[in-house]
Amino acid sequence: MGRDLTAVREPKQDRSRATRERLLSSTIELLARRGWDASTVSTVAAAAGVSRGAAQHHFPTREALITAALEQVFEEMTQRIREVSQTLPDGPAHIHAVVERAVDIYTGMEFKAALQVWAAAASDSALRDLILPLEGKFARAAHRYTMVALGVDPDDVQAHRLVQATLDLARGLGLADTLSDDSARRAQVIDTWSRQLALALA
Amino acid sequence: MGRDLTAVREPKQDRSRATRERLLSSTIELLARRGWDASTVSTVAAAAGVSRGAAQHHFPTREALITAALEQVFEEMTQRIREVSQTLPDGPAHIHAVVERAVDIYTGMEFKAALQVWAAAASDSALRDLILPLEGKFARAAHRYTMVALGVDPDDVQAHRLVQATLDLARGLGLADTLSDDSARRAQVIDTWSRQLALALA
Repeated sequence: MGRDLTAVREPKQDRSRATRERLLSSTIELLARRGWDASTVSTVAAAAGVSRGAAQHHFPTREALITAALEQVFEEMTQRIREVSQTLPDGPAHIHAVVERAVDIYTGMEFKAALQVWAAAASDSALRDLILPLEGKFARAAHRYTMVALGVDPDDVQAHRLVQATLDLARGLGLADTLSDDSARRAQVIDTWSRQLALALA
Repeated sequence: MGRDLTAVREPKQDRSRATRERLLSSTIELLARRGWDASTVSTVAAAAGVSRGAAQHHFPTREALITAALEQVFEEMTQRIREVSQTLPDGPAHIHAVVERAVDIYTGMEFKAALQVWAAAASDSALRDLILPLEGKFARAAHRYTMVALGVDPDDVQAHRLVQATLDLARGLGLADTLSDDSARRAQVIDTWSRQLALALA
């Protein structure tokens, strides 16, 4: 009988988890494509094909939904940065590939969704308090994995700051890409930066 | 009699110009401090102490107001970048000062106002079409004046791209400063990049 109950409970938990994930990916997509005002619990529920009641069961408030979506955004971005170090070319192309992939992470849909939350949080101190710890955690992880991908000594202060600068550059390139396709110019900036970084780390 | 009419007309034009300027600076301040949703013709008129009718005389639509405010933002940022080249220390501190002041321009209230417009334009193609030419004009001016401030050959392709990278870095540092005071970390990144830039331009 215990086994039967488990069998019933597990699919229900799976469904619940799948609903939650669908709500979060709809939130990220709506934020990135339709903006802050268009991303409420109701609009997200409709986009995800979930009833409003079920959406509110998972996320009773808009803050809860947005915070969870931003957490998901940062987890995906961290995961992509972590994967970078596992798939890199050897030799002179190595540093270029690290920079290019770090920048890639700031030009995807996740960054565009995060930008909407940042812009909203600039004038909403309650939202700001919720997202600052998430942002700090992501910044530390992005920095750590980029250091690993570059294969530099974690205690090298100069390398530490060069990686910070690289991630700041990536953020700036991400912002430059929000209104129009900036990829051609960006590729040149990545080339130039990568050469400087290689010289500085040599 | 012609003189009398002029005397009457000019103060009226002055008043009209002063009203327009007050509306634009209130828009910039509201965007930066209260965000996109809080920056409408009505709220701006109230903040500027101007009647709604007078505000609508100057700016019949929100798009007209926002576009004019962004134009003003970019003019002020361009003006500040232009001034940089006129007040720089000589010697080794020169490049550091150029980078520092370029970054300063992206961490002020004007940038924070522009960020709100960018975020809104990400999902509003009509607004995007209005602001892209303004942004392109600003980007070209910022680049040109930074080249001048650094005293580099305008035809030097490597210098051209290094300046692009510097401004992209500045934009990224500006974005990192929107939610919390990032000035201590930023100063270190500016130091690190200035040293690289000096080596690269030498």
